[in-house]
Amino acid sequence: MLSAAEDVFAAQGTGASTEEVARAAGVGIGTVFRHFPTKEALLEAVLLERLHRFVAEVARWAEAEDPGNAFYSFLGQWVDMGTAKNAYIDALAAAGAAAPRLGGEAQQRVLDALGTLLTRAQRAGTVREDVEVPELIALLVGASRALEYLGEDTSSRRRTVQIIFDGLRPSHRR
Amino acid sequence: MLSAAEDVFAAQGTGASTEEVARAAGVGIGTVFRHFPTKEALLEAVLLERLHRFVAEVARWAEAEDPGNAFYSFLGQWVDMGTAKNAYIDALAAAGAAAPRLGGEAQQRVLDALGTLLTRAQRAGTVREDVEVPELIALLVGASRALEYLGEDTSSRRRTVQIIFDGLRPSHRR
Repeated sequence: MLSAAEDVFAAQGTGASTEEVARAAGVGIGTVFRHFPTKEALLEAVLLERLHRFVAEVARWAEAEDPGNAFYSFLGQWVDMGTAKNAYIDALAAAGAAAPRLGGEAQQRVLDALGTLLTRAQRAGTVREDVEVPELIALLVGASRALEYLGEDTSSRRRTVQIIFDGLRPSHRR
Repeated sequence: MLSAAEDVFAAQGTGASTEEVARAAGVGIGTVFRHFPTKEALLEAVLLERLHRFVAEVARWAEAEDPGNAFYSFLGQWVDMGTAKNAYIDALAAAGAAAPRLGGEAQQRVLDALGTLLTRAQRAGTVREDVEVPELIALLVGASRALEYLGEDTSSRRRTVQIIFDGLRPSHRR
């Protein structure tokens, strides 16, 4: 049901009704309300589910054999996510911005996973030392917005990502 | 009246009513409708007015004696604009994205002004050669979103701007 809810909210925005979620999930509206008494509870569950997937993905990159390149592979994948992107960004921004709704645990897991990915790349010498997790989240959020603006202009997208990546490298590696 | 309309839309969003604009401008609703038959016409006039101010500001920086540093001064001022920011971003993104509503002339003036600012900085050797106007607008839009996310965290804001600026510099100047 969460997966159907995510699809519906992604396609129609968070204004989509619980009835539409029930229809997409192929269950009665009563079933949805039994699991999620309010629409806020349903939205929160979708958001948490996304965050857990995001954490799992970051953790996978953080464990890569080549942490210096893994950092940029993760970033590149993130900014290319396309349609699923905005939903993730909202989830990430909400977590990073200490949204009280999300609870401390999910938020802390996001910050820890990004911190590990970043620290390992810094130790490998591919990311400047003065970057911390808040700037990393801000750049992910900003890069997504920048590419959203550029739309399908592939060469501009590539150059924009390159500028941000070059800015993240230590001065001797740029 | 345009200035009152801009204040009202900035404070309350574009959903604010024409009645509220009339009240803020100290005129009757009939007067507003005589100048702007529809709310869309009023919004468009506000957007155009903002774009003209933006063009004038970019043109001023593009004529600076030190074009290499002027480019970064303009960027720094832009990302620090604070409350007035989102309105400008919307206007800029709309112009850059070829919004048909705006008409070709206003849009072309924005693109020309940014192009002059960028080209002069590239000639002065402070901006990498492979940056073009679309990437510049994308980075302005993205940086604003990144800083909006960071809120009042001054040191993270400064580092985020620095990363983007460093990415824009030619490799030998970073």
